[in-house]
Amino acid sequence: MPYVAPVKDMLFVMNELAGLADVVAYPSYAQAGVDVDLAPAILEESAKFTQDVIAPLNWPGDQNPSSWKDGVVTTTPGFKEAFEQFAAAGWQGVVHPVEFGGQALPKLIAAACFEMVHSASLSFALCPMLTDGAIEALLTAASPEIQAQYVPNMISGEWTGSMCLTEPQAGSDLSMVRSKAIPEGDGTYKIFGTKIYITYGEHDMAKNIVHLVLARTPDAPEGVKGISLFVVPKLLVNTDGSLGERNDVHCVSIEHKLGIKASPTAVLQFGDHGGAIGYLVGEENRGLEYMFVMMNAARFAVGMQGIAVAERAYQKAVQYAKDRVQSRDLDGSAGPVAIIHQPDVKRMLMTMRAYTEASRALAYYAAAANDAQHAAPDEGQRKASQAVYEFLVPIVKGFSTEMSIEVASLGIQVHGGMGFIEETGAAQHYRDARILTIYEGTTAIQANDLLGRKTVRDGGATARVLSQKIAQTEKELLASSSADAQAVLKQLKIGRAAFEDTVAYILANAKSDTKAVYAGSFAYLRLSGLVLGAWQMARSLLAAERLRDSDPAFYHAKITTARFFAENLLPQASALATSIIESGHSTNALEVEQF
Amino acid sequence: MPYVAPVKDMLFVMNELAGLADVVAYPSYAQAGVDVDLAPAILEESAKFTQDVIAPLNWPGDQNPSSWKDGVVTTTPGFKEAFEQFAAAGWQGVVHPVEFGGQALPKLIAAACFEMVHSASLSFALCPMLTDGAIEALLTAASPEIQAQYVPNMISGEWTGSMCLTEPQAGSDLSMVRSKAIPEGDGTYKIFGTKIYITYGEHDMAKNIVHLVLARTPDAPEGVKGISLFVVPKLLVNTDGSLGERNDVHCVSIEHKLGIKASPTAVLQFGDHGGAIGYLVGEENRGLEYMFVMMNAARFAVGMQGIAVAERAYQKAVQYAKDRVQSRDLDGSAGPVAIIHQPDVKRMLMTMRAYTEASRALAYYAAAANDAQHAAPDEGQRKASQAVYEFLVPIVKGFSTEMSIEVASLGIQVHGGMGFIEETGAAQHYRDARILTIYEGTTAIQANDLLGRKTVRDGGATARVLSQKIAQTEKELLASSSADAQAVLKQLKIGRAAFEDTVAYILANAKSDTKAVYAGSFAYLRLSGLVLGAWQMARSLLAAERLRDSDPAFYHAKITTARFFAENLLPQASALATSIIESGHSTNALEVEQF
Repeated sequence: MPYVAPVKDMLFVMNELAGLADVVAYPSYAQAGVDVDLAPAILEESAKFTQDVIAPLNWPGDQNPSSWKDGVVTTTPGFKEAFEQFAAAGWQGVVHPVEFGGQALPKLIAAACFEMVHSASLSFALCPMLTDGAIEALLTAASPEIQAQYVPNMISGEWTGSMCLTEPQAGSDLSMVRSKAIPEGDGTYKIFGTKIYITYGEHDMAKNIVHLVLARTPDAPEGVKGISLFVVPKLLVNTDGSLGERNDVHCVSIEHKLGIKASPTAVLQFGDHGGAIGYLVGEENRGLEYMFVMMNAARFAVGMQGIAVAERAYQKAVQYAKDRVQSRDLDGSAGPVAIIHQPDVKRMLMTMRAYTEASRALAYYAAAANDAQHAAPDEGQRKASQAVYEFLVPIVKGFSTEMSIEVASLGIQVHGGMGFIEETGAAQHYRDARILTIYEGTTAIQANDLLGRKTVRDGGATARVLSQKIAQTEKELLASSSADAQAVLKQLKIGRAAFEDTVAYILANAKSDTKAVYAGSFAYLRLSGLVLGAWQMARSLLAAERLRDSDPAFYHAKITTARFFAENLLPQASALATSIIESGHSTNALEVEQF
Repeated sequence: MPYVAPVKDMLFVMNELAGLADVVAYPSYAQAGVDVDLAPAILEESAKFTQDVIAPLNWPGDQNPSSWKDGVVTTTPGFKEAFEQFAAAGWQGVVHPVEFGGQALPKLIAAACFEMVHSASLSFALCPMLTDGAIEALLTAASPEIQAQYVPNMISGEWTGSMCLTEPQAGSDLSMVRSKAIPEGDGTYKIFGTKIYITYGEHDMAKNIVHLVLARTPDAPEGVKGISLFVVPKLLVNTDGSLGERNDVHCVSIEHKLGIKASPTAVLQFGDHGGAIGYLVGEENRGLEYMFVMMNAARFAVGMQGIAVAERAYQKAVQYAKDRVQSRDLDGSAGPVAIIHQPDVKRMLMTMRAYTEASRALAYYAAAANDAQHAAPDEGQRKASQAVYEFLVPIVKGFSTEMSIEVASLGIQVHGGMGFIEETGAAQHYRDARILTIYEGTTAIQANDLLGRKTVRDGGATARVLSQKIAQTEKELLASSSADAQAVLKQLKIGRAAFEDTVAYILANAKSDTKAVYAGSFAYLRLSGLVLGAWQMARSLLAAERLRDSDPAFYHAKITTARFFAENLLPQASALATSIIESGHSTNALEVEQF
C-alpha cells in the first residue's frame, strides 16, 4: 500500500506545539536563512521522495532480504540505487554542519524528514540513521584530521557508518566489552574481536563503511571506564583520500531475523588476519562517553521509528476498514456497511491514531528542546532545554516503540484474517516493530535511565518543571469554555497527580528500597509517556480551538483525538501509579528457583 | 527448548479452584469410574506424550511448513506419525461418548490435556481441535446414521474434521455466506462454493477429511436464518463404510501466514466439477445454530491455546533469564549476575506468569461449569452453570488470547536481541499467538457477545452472580490474617467496584446510546478478564495459605503471584472502567472521511 506522509499534522505539531518560529529565530539558523516558510517546502520534498522512491521498496525488502555469501552482503534490489538518490538529494546531511557538506537544519525539521524515511522503510532508513550517529560521534570527539577524512564522504553518502558496540557477552552491559586495541606505536592500533548485531555492518550500498568500534587498550582499567572508541574503516583510506587496501574486518554471517529483514545485521570479525587497523577517536578510555552522544541521537531516532511504523500501520488499517464491507451498522442500517462504522473498529483506529499523534507531538517537542539546547542564545535556556531533552529521550525511545508494537498489532486485528496473511503487509509492520524496544537500549535500559539518571539524580527537578508546564496547560483548558477542553482537563489533572505521586514515591524510596522502586521503572516510563503525550494532545486541542475556522474538519479531528487520548488512554496512568507504588515487593518476592 | 507440562499447577487449579471432586461425583462420571485419583495419572501420561512426541515438532514445523502442490498438501515431516500415535493413544476421544469409542471424561480433565497439546505445538493441535469441534456438531445435530458413519472414524483418528464457514465476503458476518446446496432428490445435495481460511482443510495426516460446510439451499431465506449445515467428506463413504470416490472438493491453495505455519490453511473449492456431494446435518436453515455449538467448543479451545502458548513462552523466557549473565545486581553485588535478578526482568516474568496462571484458573473453572451444565444431577445447578459457562466463554477466548500476544511479546523482550533472531524460537510464539485473537471469532466478536448476549440480555443477572461470588471471596480474604490476603482484598474490592460500575453503565445505556456503549466492549471484556482472573488468583491464595506447609516453595509462589496480579495487573480494571464510561462518544466522533 502506498504511504502518504502526514505533512499537515507534522507542520501543525512543528508550528503550534514545538515552536518552530522560535527555533528558526536562533541566530545560527536565522543567519543561515532558515525560516518557518522553509519547513513546508522541505517536508513536501521529503514526502515526495520517500513516497515515490523508498516506500515501494518496503515489501520487496521483506520478501527478498539482504543476503550473505562468502563475506559479501547483497542488499535488496533497488536499495543501492535509492540510497544513491537519497544521498545525492542531500538528505544524509540535513542536520550536519555546512562546512562538512551538510545543511545545518534544526533537528525539529530533520525529525519530520526522518520520520518519513522510517515510515517508508524501517530497513532502508537504518543505513542513514546509523551513519548519522557515526557522524555525530566523530564531530563530537574525533580529531580535525579524522573529521576531515571521514565526515564529508559520509555526508555525501559515498561512505556509510556503523556502530560496533555489542559482543556476545556484552549487550545491555557494555562494561563487559572484550575487544582489544593494541597500539602499534605509530598512532594506529590493531583491533581484535567479535562484534554482533551490527546493523549495516556490511553491505553493497556504498564504497566504504566507517565502523566505530568499542575496544580496550592493553592497560585499560576494568569496566566501563576502560573502553575506547576507534574508527575502523572497511577499506583503508590513503593520505590523498583515495581508498586503499581492505582492512582486516570481515562479515562472517548475517542474522535470520523476525523483521527489518532487508537491513543486514552483521557479525563482524576484527583482526582474524593480523589485526584491523584502527584510529583512536578522542582520548583513550572515554569511548563510552562519546558513544553515548551517538546513542542519544540514535535513541531519539529509534523513537521516531516507532512513530513512523505506527503511522504506516494506521494508514493501512484505515484503508482496509473503509474498504471491507461486513455486518450491519449498530444504528440499524439495512445492509452491511464498511467495518469502519463498527465502534470497536473505530476504537482500534482511534487508539492507533491517538498514540501516533501524541508520540509525534512529544518527539517533535523534544527535538525543539534539543535545538534550543544547542542554538538558543541564552545560556539559561540552553541548560533548561538540555534537561528537558535528556528527560524526554528515554520516553521518546521507550514509549513510542512500546506503543508501536501495540499499534502494529491493532493494525493486524483491524484486518481480521487478512492481517495474518503475509501478502497483506500488515504483519510486516508487526514483525518490524518488534525490534524497536530492543535495539539502542531496551525499554528496561530507557526506564532505568529515566528513573535513575533523569529523575533521582536531579532530585526530581526536571520532572517538576514538566509538571508545572502541564499545570499551565490545565489553566488554559479551564479558560476555554468548550466541553472538550473540560473533559480533557478532568483527565489531565488526574494524570498529572499520578505522575507527581509516582515521582514523590520514587524520590522517597529509591535509595532505601531500590529494587522495589526499580520494579516500577517500566511503568514509570509508560506513565510519563501517557501523561506527557496527553499534555501535548491537550495543547493540540487548545491550538485547534484557536485555528478551527481555517480548516474545520482537520481541527475537529485534532480536538476529538485529544479528547479520546484523555478519556480512553490516559486513565491507564493512575493504574500504573498504583502498580508502581503497590507492587514493588511482590514483583521481587519470588526466589530464582521458584520461577 | 523442551516443554515441561505444568502438571502441578494444573492439578492445583483442578482440585482447589475448579472443584474436580464435585465434577467426578456427577453420576455419569462416577458410574464410569472417574475419580479424583484418575486426573494425575491422565495428566502425567499426557505430559509425557506431548513433551516427548509433539513438542519437538514445533520448531521444525515453523521452518518447514505444510506445502501445497497440485492440490495435495504435505505436512511437516513427523506430523503424520505423531498424529497416528496421538489417535492410537485415545487422545482424540477424551471427552466424547464411550459408545463412539471415546472416554467420556470431564471437560475439566480434557482442558488440561489439550492445554499440553497446544503448548507442545499450536499448529499440530489444530488438527485434533477442529476434529473435536466437528465431532461435537455431528453429535449435536446429525442423524444417527451420519453419526454412526462418521464419528467413530473421527474419534479413532482415521479421519479428521474441518469447519468450512468463511468465504471471501463472509468472515465475521456469516449472514453473507453464498455457497449453494442444491437438493438432488435422493436426500443428498450438490454443494458449490469457495471456502477460505479452512484449517487442516487438506492434508496427508488421515485417510479422509470430514468437512462441515455452511451453505444455502435454493429457497432459503436471506441472512443467518437461511444457512444449513452439510457433511461433505473428501472421499465418499460407501454403505459398507469403506472409502469410495473422491468428492468434488479441492484445495486450490494454502496461505502464506505469519505464524502457525505447519497447519495448512486451505482455500477449498466445492463443486467445480459438477458438484460436491453433501449430506444435510439436522434440519435445513438451522446450520448456524448447530455451528455455534461447535464454535463455542472451539472458542473455549482457542482460549486454551492462548494460555498454552503463554505458558511455553514463559518457560522459555525463564530459562534464558536464568542463563544470561549481564550487569550487576542492584543490591550492589561485585560481578555481573543472571538477568533474572534485575527487577524489570522479574516484572516481565511475573507478568507472564500471573497472566498465564490466572487465565488457566479461569478457563478450568469454566470447564467445570460446562461439566456441571451437562452432568450435574440438579436442574437448577445445570442451568446456573450453563449461564456462568456461557458468560465465561467469550472471556476465556478473548482475554486469554489477547494476553497471550502480550506475554509472547514479553518473551521476546526478556531475550533482548536474541529474541529477534528466529533461531532462538521466542519469535515463533509471538507470530503464532497473533492468530488467536482473530480466528473462531475476533476479540470484537467475543466482546460483543459478552456485552450483548451475555450481559444485557439477562439484565446483568449472571454478572451479578459472579460479582456475589467475588464478594464471598472477599469475606474469606478478610478472615485471613495475612498481609498478602489484605493486600489482595484491597485491590479486589476496587476491581469488583469497577466491574459493577461498568455493568451498571452498560445496562443503563445499551439501548439509548448503543454505539457509545459498544465502543467500550473490548475494554469490558478485558476488565472482566482482569477482575475474574484476580478473583481466581485470590482463591488460589486462600487455598495456598491452607495448604502451605505441605509444599512451602510452591504455595509461597502461588501466594506471591496472586498478590502480584492484584497489585500490578488488576489496577488496570479501574482505568478500563473509566475509559468505558467516559470515552464512548469520542471513540465514535470522527466521520469516516476524517480518518
